[in-house]
Amino acid sequence: MDIDKLSSGTCSIARSLALVGDTWSVLILRDASRGMTQFDQFRTSLGIAPNILSRRLKGLTEAGVLEKRRYSERPPRDEYVLTQAGREFLPIMAAMGEWGRRHNGGGAKLSHLVADETGERVSAVVIDEVTGRRLDQLPMRLVMPD
Amino acid sequence: MDIDKLSSGTCSIARSLALVGDTWSVLILRDASRGMTQFDQFRTSLGIAPNILSRRLKGLTEAGVLEKRRYSERPPRDEYVLTQAGREFLPIMAAMGEWGRRHNGGGAKLSHLVADETGERVSAVVIDEVTGRRLDQLPMRLVMPD
Repeated sequence: MDIDKLSSGTCSIARSLALVGDTWSVLILRDASRGMTQFDQFRTSLGIAPNILSRRLKGLTEAGVLEKRRYSERPPRDEYVLTQAGREFLPIMAAMGEWGRRHNGGGAKLSHLVADETGERVSAVVIDEVTGRRLDQLPMRLVMPD
Repeated sequence: MDIDKLSSGTCSIARSLALVGDTWSVLILRDASRGMTQFDQFRTSLGIAPNILSRRLKGLTEAGVLEKRRYSERPPRDEYVLTQAGREFLPIMAAMGEWGRRHNGGGAKLSHLVADETGERVSAVVIDEVTGRRLDQLPMRLVMPD
């Protein structure tokens, strides 16, 4: 997978995948949205090898999805927080969660999103902003630019 | 990445990633949603190595996202079509496309979705099904089951 090629191509979906197109990256963003910021928090939560985690954090930072901040000088320690772009990926993860529940749920009790204000469960659905129609009920096609 | 562990865990997002959590897989689904069904169509569109494409098609078929159908006996040839689960992933790709345009667009002319019926451009946004609120404007948190 040539990420540079993906990132400079004409497909908007591929442009998204160029930034966050792998499983670990999405799971790191998931945990960041749960308030995790530190290397060891991600490592423990994900059971991920340190070198892989380092690489993914670097990639997400370079992609502008996480921001690296030094929170201790001695010893030198960085934390990683979501940027605006990173926060705006959360709705997509919410939609992925609904899809995962539906098609790979197996009847198990699974994670879900709740609104901070009300504590009510959030059920993500993707609609067309203009017509309000649900995209899972709207026949549509992807058009590449000329 | 232990896919079996991901697929049997309690996070609905991880359950989704267990089925389609890599760049090639999503790009194959994208092309399938554009009407491609044959090995050579995917290979040409994606510039993907044949052995990697074979593996991904097998994985997506086992995940229940694509269905393999024999369309020729001599020579033996299979095609791959989206299942209901595969079709329902398209709205998520639509939301990824909007995000990619916004955060990695660089002002380029990029692919977009149009409704079959009207030919009008579709602009994907994720909302809460119950309240109708946009999730990018709704502070929320992911809750893991007990």
